Amino acid sequence: MATVSLIEYEDADPTVRQVYDDIMTTREVDWVNNFWKVLAVQPELLRRTWEGVKEVMAPGVLDPLTKEMIYLAVSVTNGCEYCINSHTAGARKKGMTDEMLSELMAVVGMANQTNALADGFQVEVDEAFR
Amino acid sequence: MATVSLIEYEDADPTVRQVYDDIMTTREVDWVNNFWKVLAVQPELLRRTWEGVKEVMAPGVLDPLTKEMIYLAVSVTNGCEYCINSHTAGARKKGMTDEMLSELMAVVGMANQTNALADGFQVEVDEAFR
Amino acid sequence: MATVSLIEYEDADPTVRQVYDDIMTTREVDWVNNFWKVLAVQPELLRRTWEGVKEVMAPGVLDPLTKEMIYLAVSVTNGCEYCINSHTAGARKKGMTDEMLSELMAVVGMANQTNALADGFQVEVDEAFR
Amino acid sequence: MATVSLIEYEDADPTVRQVYDDIMTTREVDWVNNFWKVLAVQPELLRRTWEGVKEVMAPGVLDPLTKEMIYLAVSVTNGCEYCINSHTAGARKKGMTDEMLSELMAVVGMANQTNALADGFQVEVDEAFR
Amino acid sequence: MATVSLIEYEDADPTVRQVYDDIMTTREVDWVNNFWKVLAVQPELLRRTWEGVKEVMAPGVLDPLTKEMIYLAVSVTNGCEYCINSHTAGARKKGMTDEMLSELMAVVGMANQTNALADGFQVEVDEAFR
Amino acid sequence: MATVSLIEYEDADPTVRQVYDDIMTTREVDWVNNFWKVLAVQPELLRRTWEGVKEVMAPGVLDPLTKEMIYLAVSVTNGCEYCINSHTAGARKKGMTDEMLSELMAVVGMANQTNALADGFQVEVDEAFR
Repeated sequence: MATVSLIEYEDADPTVRQVYDDIMTTREVDWVNNFWKVLAVQPELLRRTWEGVKEVMAPGVLDPLTKEMIYLAVSVTNGCEYCINSHTAGARKKGMTDEMLSELMAVVGMANQTNALADGFQVEVDEAFR
Repeated sequence: MATVSLIEYEDADPTVRQVYDDIMTTREVDWVNNFWKVLAVQPELLRRTWEGVKEVMAPGVLDPLTKEMIYLAVSVTNGCEYCINSHTAGARKKGMTDEMLSELMAVVGMANQTNALADGFQVEVDEAFR
Repeated sequence: MATVSLIEYEDADPTVRQVYDDIMTTREVDWVNNFWKVLAVQPELLRRTWEGVKEVMAPGVLDPLTKEMIYLAVSVTNGCEYCINSHTAGARKKGMTDEMLSELMAVVGMANQTNALADGFQVEVDEAFR
Repeated sequence: MATVSLIEYEDADPTVRQVYDDIMTTREVDWVNNFWKVLAVQPELLRRTWEGVKEVMAPGVLDPLTKEMIYLAVSVTNGCEYCINSHTAGARKKGMTDEMLSELMAVVGMANQTNALADGFQVEVDEAFR
Repeated sequence: MATVSLIEYEDADPTVRQVYDDIMTTREVDWVNNFWKVLAVQPELLRRTWEGVKEVMAPGVLDPLTKEMIYLAVSVTNGCEYCINSHTAGARKKGMTDEMLSELMAVVGMANQTNALADGFQVEVDEAFR
Repeated sequence: MATVSLIEYEDADPTVRQVYDDIMTTREVDWVNNFWKVLAVQPELLRRTWEGVKEVMAPGVLDPLTKEMIYLAVSVTNGCEYCINSHTAGARKKGMTDEMLSELMAVVGMANQTNALADGFQVEVDEAFR
């Protein structure tokens, strides 16, 4: 259960509604997920976070699906339940199949393993990598 | 400085040399980086880790560059210096430009921020995401 | 569900009861939360942990509310569900409002983002900061 | 060594210079630290990150020193060398003494310990905390 | 709820069944836990992960119970709910008592505390330790 | 470089000296490592931390070497450079060989991998494990 009250659309002030509207328009959905309803406790936090996410996740030199998968890889490494669920759903919507998810997880698992080994033995960075 | 002695090619036993040879052939390089020279302290650990990395990083439904960028995203989130340096180098070799690296980091940074916010407010997973 | 049995007051031996009594007196409450009932599986672990927490969280050059908010910031970064809930409750009891919580989370989120960026690009520490 | 080239003021384009100027004005310093010179590899990443930090760290219901200490607590928990050094310096500039730093670290250390204990025994959240 | 469908024995293809059989034989149990049923979404990921775990957890210079406790210590530090539960159960099956679990957790808690303190104050590694 | 000044024995007040003496006596060494010289900035933090470490690391139902290896496993997972170096040295002094270290790291690496996979696919805890 969230540690603050969720702000529903009908109870939201104009600033918050404007962000909610933009979220629904940008994502082509007719509802707002809990994450934003929680941030609305402080409208500036909501607005700033949404604008950041919108800019960062827009198509660029990396395509939106690749970005979603990178987002998911970070969320898994941090063990964030909400984020793993929402970004798995987000990536599937953008075309991620079970096979792609499995390959992604295989890379994430392997990276977590070798990160531990490199730190664990205190391996020095090769000159060629700098 | 590594906490065990690095095993150089000329001092390696046949099992270790075979892995070193396979690393150089697979990656089309003429040297072996420190990570593997440290794992060689236990030849089975070296062999198992290399075979895992080789399989996981091979082209699949995800292309090798996407996999390298996911690997890098995990390494950044874990703050692993060796891994950040080696996988930045690895991704550049496969075609990652400064612009791609910047977009990748922007996503990784944003994901770490919203992971903290979702955990921090204990946001409940929306039914639609499960 | 906890991985060990919780020790309730009525089943506790004198050493454990003494700690439970001290917790209730110090915090001016008439109940003991699950965290301590779990640590009571090893009375010395309970006693040592409680004495540490009591000393560290006592008023010092930092006031108790600031300390609770710092505790919460760490718990969020670690993604510890129990700790986020208990220290959000603890900080509210000491006067934290929704607005303060939101500013705290905004800082915690931003710190997690820039930590990732600084590690991700392997930024060198400026001489002026050392 | 950073994985991208640092952009110095004299080599920066107008957008980047404007951010550098704002950083120096806001912080009342005559130099720009490495973190920003690295982000300048992508001017939008620089601008967005700086504006976020500026807004979040401005005086609010929490004072700037408290915010710096929370930032430091997160950086320590993530083990981010750059961030620990820069935010320790930042907090000292805003008035943090050795005694305050020690109390902060004592809280951060204790929180990391009890976070592990709460997760380790899988303690259930008390109803009273929800 | 898992983000992919679990593959039950009766629906599994021969490759997956062979791994399931080996898990049950090796562990002397008549069921397969959810972790493997999820990895079966990609049979190669299942096979590779199981073979790695089987090799690593086999008796060596470290005995199986010590290995399980080390596995648990890592899982606690990462806050992985599934892993904490499964490896606490696994270690108990191999002989871990409540008293051993408590001592293990006391070490894990203390290590997380002093890790934070060492990072927090940026303590330099003594020459004698290198 | 540490963010506070190290307190050397000759400059230490009696409380600090008493802890330093106890560290040297308990560990049968004639020097004090940097970690303690940094904590001495706040004598109570030094005393409390040392007494905690001394109690937790004393022989119990787990032997001192097993405890050191668990400490090291946590330090690796957190990526704490100081702690990895000091506890690798500590474990070696208590008898850890290169072969034991390699097996320990193999377990730590594997645990970090499967932790990510269990979190990544959001595997539900089996009833049998609770």
